[in-house]
Amino acid sequence: MTPTALLLIAHGSRRAEANADLDYLAAELRARGEYLVVQPSYLELADPEIVPGGEMCVAVGAGRVVMLPYFLSPGRHVVEDLTAARDELARRHPAVEFVLAEPLGRHPLMLQVVTERARAALGQ
Amino acid sequence: MTPTALLLIAHGSRRAEANADLDYLAAELRARGEYLVVQPSYLELADPEIVPGGEMCVAVGAGRVVMLPYFLSPGRHVVEDLTAARDELARRHPAVEFVLAEPLGRHPLMLQVVTERARAALGQ
Repeated sequence: MTPTALLLIAHGSRRAEANADLDYLAAELRARGEYLVVQPSYLELADPEIVPGGEMCVAVGAGRVVMLPYFLSPGRHVVEDLTAARDELARRHPAVEFVLAEPLGRHPLMLQVVTERARAALGQ
Repeated sequence: MTPTALLLIAHGSRRAEANADLDYLAAELRARGEYLVVQPSYLELADPEIVPGGEMCVAVGAGRVVMLPYFLSPGRHVVEDLTAARDELARRHPAVEFVLAEPLGRHPLMLQVVTERARAALGQ
């Protein structure tokens, strides 16, 4: 099977604690051992940005990189930036496959996440 | 049991399709019938904003309003705005309980949402 990397992409913040959420998620996903590497990256305001993050995946031997937007509902601007980053990575590494995943918001499980957050707030 | 409303709070966008995500979620939650009312609201750029949204919940008879941030990881600015909106609603409606829920990002199920989005991108 092609060695596959997971490139997580968040907006990025100047606040370390906001970026820490992505590091936490990356650590949890690494523990599952499903991917060659799980690499956080950021649209802006934090390092690495998306293209350098993708190149770190290539450098460790990924033949395929899933680019995962850690966004509920990315705006048009974000979608354009992600697509441009994917195209740039594909141009630089034609032997590697770069696949852009869907954002998270409309996944059916989100309904359960919201419901459980609401119940927890009520102590239920 | 106290009639409880769910006030969903998203950032808000000038793009109708971004706000449509919250309407979609609200419709799904309404179909479950767990809350007296499920009301979308927005921090900015779309209507209703948070305080008017909360007052719509009170107007239909809610004795308790769960304010649910539809954010993965709200920045400090967002947290301050949500807290200020809750305090303002509590000041205007002292007989109603307003409870601010946790944002979505660190919920354990998010790991599964991310994993499934990545697999779907690979056609798995």
